Amino acid sequence: MPTIKDLAKEADLAVGTVSRVLNNRGYISEETRNKVYSAMKRIGYSPNTFAQGLSKKKMDCIAVIVPHITHPYFAKMISRLEKEASRKGYKVIIFNSSGDAARESDELLRYQSSFISGALLFSADISAEDLMSFRIPLVLVEREPVGNAVSIQCDNVTGGRLAAEHLIKKGCRELIAISSINTADMPGDDRSNEFVRVCSENGAGVRRYNADPEQYLSLNYHEMIRQALDENPGCDGIFATSDLIAAQVIQECNKKGLRIPEDIKLVGFDDVELAKLTYPTITTVHQPISEIAEAAIETIEKLNEGKTVPRKIVLPVTLIERGSA
Amino acid sequence: MPTIKDLAKEADLAVGTVSRVLNNRGYISEETRNKVYSAMKRIGYSPNTFAQGLSKKKMDCIAVIVPHITHPYFAKMISRLEKEASRKGYKVIIFNSSGDAARESDELLRYQSSFISGALLFSADISAEDLMSFRIPLVLVEREPVGNAVSIQCDNVTGGRLAAEHLIKKGCRELIAISSINTADMPGDDRSNEFVRVCSENGAGVRRYNADPEQYLSLNYHEMIRQALDENPGCDGIFATSDLIAAQVIQECNKKGLRIPEDIKLVGFDDVELAKLTYPTITTVHQPISEIAEAAIETIEKLNEGKTVPRKIVLPVTLIERGSA
Repeated sequence: MPTIKDLAKEADLAVGTVSRVLNNRGYISEETRNKVYSAMKRIGYSPNTFAQGLSKKKMDCIAVIVPHITHPYFAKMISRLEKEASRKGYKVIIFNSSGDAARESDELLRYQSSFISGALLFSADISAEDLMSFRIPLVLVEREPVGNAVSIQCDNVTGGRLAAEHLIKKGCRELIAISSINTADMPGDDRSNEFVRVCSENGAGVRRYNADPEQYLSLNYHEMIRQALDENPGCDGIFATSDLIAAQVIQECNKKGLRIPEDIKLVGFDDVELAKLTYPTITTVHQPISEIAEAAIETIEKLNEGKTVPRKIVLPVTLIERGSA
Repeated sequence: MPTIKDLAKEADLAVGTVSRVLNNRGYISEETRNKVYSAMKRIGYSPNTFAQGLSKKKMDCIAVIVPHITHPYFAKMISRLEKEASRKGYKVIIFNSSGDAARESDELLRYQSSFISGALLFSADISAEDLMSFRIPLVLVEREPVGNAVSIQCDNVTGGRLAAEHLIKKGCRELIAISSINTADMPGDDRSNEFVRVCSENGAGVRRYNADPEQYLSLNYHEMIRQALDENPGCDGIFATSDLIAAQVIQECNKKGLRIPEDIKLVGFDDVELAKLTYPTITTVHQPISEIAEAAIETIEKLNEGKTVPRKIVLPVTLIERGSA
């Protein structure tokens, strides 16, 4: 079995350089890289020979459990998590619960032992208690803390307040909050709760609509939006608790001949790519997705090192003004 | 160390039932599942004890190497791949090349040996030759075949023809094709090549615009679109080779007061969620993303079983008529 020494000799490079290539450490020129790869082929140096000896620790993967992948918020979150994890030498394994919670926790249970360093749970339909029995570091994102699992959230309450204050400042008096499902342990509800509170506090009219689980699963909120618009003909301001809902509000307003922002002003939540792809673009509450990803990976690292971590991390939000309000 | 027998005894269930839960095989009621989990906690039955003995074969993960995750096409593709892989007992590990090809192939090299059953390469910036030296089944998606790697594509040529025929049928005479980067081994170019061919064949005027790598990396095509609209004031039909580009065309037309479909008819490509979230919704060429995912996972399975597989698989596309043309 050829060794790294043989490989270095064949590639006519120092062992340290070859090791840097194999471990992807420090700067390596394309030429050096290719030298090593072609030498590997020539002497049949199989990755297996070194991968085992590569690092003392097991392969480091992080399980990311999400209810949707195509939902723009989760697509962006997965992207940032992959980037941050990769930077720290982890890879991301996707678990898409999409309603089938049992399957997911079983699969995680099945895979975790061998190479998963920690799990990030976004899905509300999976029990954090079950996951905790698997004895791997567990971080809950946008969910209330359970047991000793760490919870990372954005400041949903302030987000709801910023949306209300912005719409009221723009002159809106008859407002609607259109939210996704209302489930107990999802802090996302704080967004519309606070929005409604601040509107009332300012003497503005406000009504609230929540999606049912089926709408959330299909990510199709059109019917609820049509109902909200029909029941509130005088509505001049809408807060959608996700940019995905906001994009569908723009479609329904167009169908009814309601102009945004002239007739109805609209504020979304998340600040995902979609908010920049609609017409008008969506004024929205920016979620610190990169910062959440960073905090999540860092927390899993610390937990694996036995370090103390905060029980709950709440990251700040800001309002991004675009075309819709 | 407690065995599965002890666990079954503690859970007061048959060993077969417990094993079904642990392996997630067949139907298992929520109650049974919980019985097993709580029994695990009570007797401290660690997943590790069984996970090792779970199955003879190594942990089966499939490496999915993409240039973008937030791009709606890749978000949908990853979602379908996860679904299909999971159905067959694989998990998906994300490798986001996002321009840093060397890092990706090194990481794959580093991880593959232990538990990756195969790789799906979407990124044009990574050399298939390098990956093939890793000796794992390799499937190229939307890339021309290289060496003995299998290539899976949608019928891009027919897609370009369908777009041209639809716009011409709708009365368009001055057309534009707006494409992403034009790179040799990306069959996506066949879309606009064929579009241009069919337009000319039908005596319609047609011009073609290609994004530069920077625009592709940032997924921001607005400047190219503005230029195309400015240089072709008489344009009445546009083919965007992705729905993402099409959504940005709708934005730019709105800014210029051009109505879609009244003034300009628009056909996109991909049929991702975004095509249903714009106003008007996007008439587009449907890519068989689920079928591509299915064929990709199946091909990796067959390669691992030493079975013969097609060198190239081309899956059919269809035109979906919506609001934009």
